[in-house]
Amino acid sequence: MTEKAFQDHYPDNLSYCYGCGRLNEHGLQIKSYWDGEETVCIFQPKPYHIAVPGYVYGGLIASLIDCHCTGTAAAAAYRAEGRAMGTEPALRFLTASLHVDYLRPTPLGVPLEVRATIKEIKGRKVVASATVAAEGQVFARGEIVAIKVPEHLMLK
Amino acid sequence: MTEKAFQDHYPDNLSYCYGCGRLNEHGLQIKSYWDGEETVCIFQPKPYHIAVPGYVYGGLIASLIDCHCTGTAAAAAYRAEGRAMGTEPALRFLTASLHVDYLRPTPLGVPLEVRATIKEIKGRKVVASATVAAEGQVFARGEIVAIKVPEHLMLK
Repeated sequence: MTEKAFQDHYPDNLSYCYGCGRLNEHGLQIKSYWDGEETVCIFQPKPYHIAVPGYVYGGLIASLIDCHCTGTAAAAAYRAEGRAMGTEPALRFLTASLHVDYLRPTPLGVPLEVRATIKEIKGRKVVASATVAAEGQVFARGEIVAIKVPEHLMLK
Repeated sequence: MTEKAFQDHYPDNLSYCYGCGRLNEHGLQIKSYWDGEETVCIFQPKPYHIAVPGYVYGGLIASLIDCHCTGTAAAAAYRAEGRAMGTEPALRFLTASLHVDYLRPTPLGVPLEVRATIKEIKGRKVVASATVAAEGQVFARGEIVAIKVPEHLMLK
């Protein structure tokens, strides 16, 4: 994919998130893109992102769902306003709630594909659902409720 | 606290979990203890465990709840069997589902106190709920459904 990732449009002061900030050198730096009406993020876990031997750490899967879905919420909010991502005023979202169902242990050592769709956009609230797949099989499903970041947090 | 943490009783081959494995040098290495009928884990986030400036990354909070609750599930399962933790056969739990409600942004720079209680133990399944507090105020609540790790994963 050649277009900029959602996260590469975030303002610098909101680009330190451990999961998705491009300026957090210790973080995961996930990248999310539109793929039609869905969004997609490919992430290769590190060998130390382990749960029991051979399987991916569940907290990493929760983190991927969380940040991919808040990015998806921002992208969808721009789209709903008919604005290009990155235009002012900036739109960013925080997670109000996160739910993950771990369907079966996720294999470690292969890229993970996180896909999200928007279930609802209403006022400051966006609901997004996601799947985490590897080698074509879904290993986890998640849903988040995201809330638009208030101005006083954006300016901090 | 002077007693051994739950995680320090895990068998070596199950001690590489990114969240709670004492042998994962890249991981969080959380430590959980009984405190009466509750369990407690104190964790100091690193400066890079950031969401928006000044606040803790939600994926870290999910990870703390996840690993503290699976540890709590193991400890409670031993207690239910009247066995000391660490005795054979080893009991460890994986997360089947995780839910987190982020009540308000969690301040970064202070220790977090994760507390869990057991809601249900039945067969291979344990349900545990948790709070994440800082400076005496609760910032997040969570619940997990944990399932006893099958023998074939324990032996891998």
